[in-house]
Amino acid sequence: RSYAEFYGRARQLASALARHGIGRGDTVSAVLPNTPAMLECHYGVPMSGGVLHSVNTRLDASVIAFQLDHAMSKVVIVDREFMPLIQEALALATVSPMVIQYDDAEYAGPATETDAKDYEAFLALGDPAFDWLMPLDEWDAISINYTSGTTGDPKGVVSHHRGAYLLAQGNALTTSMAKHAVYLWTLPMFHCNGWCFPWTLSAIVGTHVCLRQVRAEPIWTALAEEGVTHLCGAPIVMSLMISAPESEKRKLDHTVQFFTAAAPPPEKLLADMKLAGFDVTHLYGLTETYGPAVVNDWHQDWSDLPPA
Amino acid sequence: RSYAEFYGRARQLASALARHGIGRGDTVSAVLPNTPAMLECHYGVPMSGGVLHSVNTRLDASVIAFQLDHAMSKVVIVDREFMPLIQEALALATVSPMVIQYDDAEYAGPATETDAKDYEAFLALGDPAFDWLMPLDEWDAISINYTSGTTGDPKGVVSHHRGAYLLAQGNALTTSMAKHAVYLWTLPMFHCNGWCFPWTLSAIVGTHVCLRQVRAEPIWTALAEEGVTHLCGAPIVMSLMISAPESEKRKLDHTVQFFTAAAPPPEKLLADMKLAGFDVTHLYGLTETYGPAVVNDWHQDWSDLPPA
Repeated sequence: RSYAEFYGRARQLASALARHGIGRGDTVSAVLPNTPAMLECHYGVPMSGGVLHSVNTRLDASVIAFQLDHAMSKVVIVDREFMPLIQEALALATVSPMVIQYDDAEYAGPATETDAKDYEAFLALGDPAFDWLMPLDEWDAISINYTSGTTGDPKGVVSHHRGAYLLAQGNALTTSMAKHAVYLWTLPMFHCNGWCFPWTLSAIVGTHVCLRQVRAEPIWTALAEEGVTHLCGAPIVMSLMISAPESEKRKLDHTVQFFTAAAPPPEKLLADMKLAGFDVTHLYGLTETYGPAVVNDWHQDWSDLPPA
Repeated sequence: RSYAEFYGRARQLASALARHGIGRGDTVSAVLPNTPAMLECHYGVPMSGGVLHSVNTRLDASVIAFQLDHAMSKVVIVDREFMPLIQEALALATVSPMVIQYDDAEYAGPATETDAKDYEAFLALGDPAFDWLMPLDEWDAISINYTSGTTGDPKGVVSHHRGAYLLAQGNALTTSMAKHAVYLWTLPMFHCNGWCFPWTLSAIVGTHVCLRQVRAEPIWTALAEEGVTHLCGAPIVMSLMISAPESEKRKLDHTVQFFTAAAPPPEKLLADMKLAGFDVTHLYGLTETYGPAVVNDWHQDWSDLPPA
């Protein structure tokens, strides 16, 4: 999709949400894999004045119910795959948001009986020329993301437009993303809004390559065929790629930048990634910092050291 | 110079200025070509809390005198080449700033009798571990630049830290400056602080290549030998480069990004620049916008059109 189409669809989503009564400060929840609809939510929801609540699809129904209630969710946009999960969560929740179902052609699983509105039909209600809402103040909320709740109920982290703007730009600087970079969506957008990369890409007129499932074969295919320049993910994503059968791996004709958070990856994995054509950079951040806050930047004199 | 040295010298300058009584909101004027001292002023003056007033060295003494008075300048840091100009301006001005002379080894011209303090001696009074001042508010002034005064006296445009920060980052995005880019100083830093590029380079850990005079031979040498990736300038800079004798020109082994403002360059010049190994991008901006505000970004389908 071109940016013109993406922009039109985001405006349609904003318009349709506004017609449904969503306005400044209202929460719209998204229970979606890294699909085009998830990107549209990252633009269309804020353009309606709403606050995007990206839900970790690996959580159980009771935790999701807690989040929907706490965020006072008014709309839930859910992928067909997660409809049973959301139905269970809504049975536990106090709120009664409108449910919109996104039917991804890439999802082959069974349908669940539902009276949810279809995502495309809902979008069709919106005006692609909608006069979307700028934030009144740069500190206004753009999204809410919940912590994992290790020590109690999940805590809602409210992000503001200012912070999202600054990290969106900061990402491009940190990762040396040139204009027209190609970004592969291995990092879930429900992890603090994919570290703000949904917004970074617009700043550098980049290409999003969506990825419904983090599996080795589609990752290697995208790297080889879509000219992917950057991707992010936990060390497990690298392990998955490196340990894939040779038949699924591809030889890359360009160096790819991989940004990994969480614990430092093992030496063997870093060595294997280097051989496979990746520059790996280790980052650290928090939901509270919008994504990466500390970068283990390469020191040029490290290049002269033995690999170990 | 390494960034560690640059940082130490900027802190020394800030410290020496503070010991001389410069504090928040005080104006320090710089009458300098694109030398290392000019870069140090772009950091050291704000780090003292002061406001940097970069003076166009092509102005006559009476206009400079007007600016020094209007800006209530307390210190003037002046290159040896411009000492006669500043002496004439100070004879006309009401203010009596302390004068510091920068003695650039690259300047071969005659010395002027002066009791000005020597720049290096002044720096030596400062502490390289000085606890420099952050702005109290992001809207605090970082610099003042004067318009050319076509329709009356020059008007002072006060820039704030916020705007300088945002355009410094914006430049990196607009020009696709990757980490460790190498920037050649053909654009005068007295033109709205070199469009904020003095600050951009720190954000991407880039290399400044200073250039005392905009002449073809040192430009081509720097492009070929310093690995310059980016430079900016008026169309006249391109003309100068292209019309240089073949003996001064160099064959480049990499594409260089040239950003030009002012009127659109003639077609012939653009064609010649392309042949010489440059991607030229046309920008427009104002002192009031900190530098580039509009970019004539390349459309990919233009690449298929005939050159004309």
